Amino acid sequence: MAVYTDVSETDLARFLADYDVGMLLSYKGIAEGVENSNFLVRTETGSFILTLYEKRVDRDDLPFFIGLMEHLASRGLSCPLPVARTDGERLGELAGRPAAVFTFLEGMWTRRPAVAHCRAVGAAMAGMHAAAADFPLRRPNALSVGAWRPLAEACGESADRVEPGLAAEIAGELAALEANWPEDLPGGVIHADLFPDNVFFLGGELSGLIDFYFACNDILAYDLAIALCAWCFEADGAFNITKGRAMIEGYRSVRPLTPGEIAALPMLARGAAMRFLLTRLYDWLNTPEGSFVTKKDPKEYLKKLRFHRGVTSAADYGLSAETETA
Amino acid sequence: MAVYTDVSETDLARFLADYDVGMLLSYKGIAEGVENSNFLVRTETGSFILTLYEKRVDRDDLPFFIGLMEHLASRGLSCPLPVARTDGERLGELAGRPAAVFTFLEGMWTRRPAVAHCRAVGAAMAGMHAAAADFPLRRPNALSVGAWRPLAEACGESADRVEPGLAAEIAGELAALEANWPEDLPGGVIHADLFPDNVFFLGGELSGLIDFYFACNDILAYDLAIALCAWCFEADGAFNITKGRAMIEGYRSVRPLTPGEIAALPMLARGAAMRFLLTRLYDWLNTPEGSFVTKKDPKEYLKKLRFHRGVTSAADYGLSAETETA
Repeated sequence: MAVYTDVSETDLARFLADYDVGMLLSYKGIAEGVENSNFLVRTETGSFILTLYEKRVDRDDLPFFIGLMEHLASRGLSCPLPVARTDGERLGELAGRPAAVFTFLEGMWTRRPAVAHCRAVGAAMAGMHAAAADFPLRRPNALSVGAWRPLAEACGESADRVEPGLAAEIAGELAALEANWPEDLPGGVIHADLFPDNVFFLGGELSGLIDFYFACNDILAYDLAIALCAWCFEADGAFNITKGRAMIEGYRSVRPLTPGEIAALPMLARGAAMRFLLTRLYDWLNTPEGSFVTKKDPKEYLKKLRFHRGVTSAADYGLSAETETA
Repeated sequence: MAVYTDVSETDLARFLADYDVGMLLSYKGIAEGVENSNFLVRTETGSFILTLYEKRVDRDDLPFFIGLMEHLASRGLSCPLPVARTDGERLGELAGRPAAVFTFLEGMWTRRPAVAHCRAVGAAMAGMHAAAADFPLRRPNALSVGAWRPLAEACGESADRVEPGLAAEIAGELAALEANWPEDLPGGVIHADLFPDNVFFLGGELSGLIDFYFACNDILAYDLAIALCAWCFEADGAFNITKGRAMIEGYRSVRPLTPGEIAALPMLARGAAMRFLLTRLYDWLNTPEGSFVTKKDPKEYLKKLRFHRGVTSAADYGLSAETETA
């Protein structure tokens, strides 16, 4: 839930006067997103999302995020399009924060992903990877393999408060990941947070992707590994190989996976589980009780990490043998 | 801020199938209101507000609230209109909560009320009082003079943690209010919470009233006293008599005040300040630090209470002498 900054109607009307969107009719703070303040704004010409960038987002990254959404939308990907002001700028300032206006995307995220959703997400992700191939800006992934050791050290022995032995398990896992993290795999712009709440569906069809505020340059297949973690496990912790197969097939229907990517998928998935285990663990240990922020259980990703550690090949994710060896 | 209950897209689509609103296109939790969960819902036919009634709202009161809004809207007052299902019902159930759908009201609440806003609010309030005159349901005010002593006792000596001597000051004030609370003044349905965030303006005109979940039967002029407290003080704590005059004149332009109401206004305003002082004090003392709920400073209403205690007649609120004696 997030509206960290209140905006007055007079300030908003003045801000919108720089856009060609007509008179402001209403605006409501939206209880979604955890990094920024978002408002659903209605004007004479339609509905928009207004985003105020809060402290957790680095201002220097905003041209990358805004530029990426504009680039992707121009390539036909359905995502929020940053609306240009009459002077051509897409980033302004409101209530002391950097602020931008986006087109409103119809659709809803699915609380219970089914096989068809997983297939559609795989295809949309590959479409995004392809569409971003000629995006000129770069942003390193601040939460990739190099960032995990400092995160683990910041949690330290406190990890054992979540589960006895967790600190040692993380240390062992870190060593394995750092020693075996793949190099020379195809890279590009990845979404890096393509969880169910960032994918909209409408009438059974995928209607768009949102929330590009973790997007960065990294191994493309790592994005797929993150999505396998986020979409293809059941509530009881079991991996659903039918969903995994659908997601991978959906991805490959748009962009083929190289043999190197296929071979690396289990290690990338271990890394993906590690990344979310560590950030959730850190938040769990450092967020006060009864806080504004909903804490997510780190154990969910510990379970996923253990599953991936036991995986021997991408076949365990549903990749069919004939295509794997093709 | 409030979205206490998440709603799945499949449950919402099923819920909306009982309404003649077309296909569900999107919905977003709204970070407004503190009692209920609210969503801005878009369908093929337009925008709506979906409200899920949480535990703090008594289910037995819902027919009063829903019926009142329907009644007021039918009398031409601009307020959210409960949308009827195809079977004629206006109250359903969603995610285990009573739920209703309302028409979307354009407009914005004003963060910096000016004199013209105060005048418009006074007139709209009197219009609401008049429109509700023939509303058949009744709901006693659970937060009127009889409720203040139990609230004060629940705070007890802890009040002194907010300001030394506050418990004794409240006790003295309670005695005065209970001894002098007016009887036999004109009664009816009041809004009872007509603060700036419950009044929408659009293009300088009042566009509607919202949030009728404190509405009840009580002294009509008490509603005006609440609004004088809520709208006519400046940030530095000073009463702005120009705003008070405008609000009272606005009210009287639609519904005349009786000599008894005018004479009682200072005591009603003391009561109004007491009511908000006590509920804020209770929340202040009983809400854990870092909680989800934003705590409002009780001292704001202590200051207002002290101002009203020093008021000798409604002239101090801006009521002009010639009309007072007319």
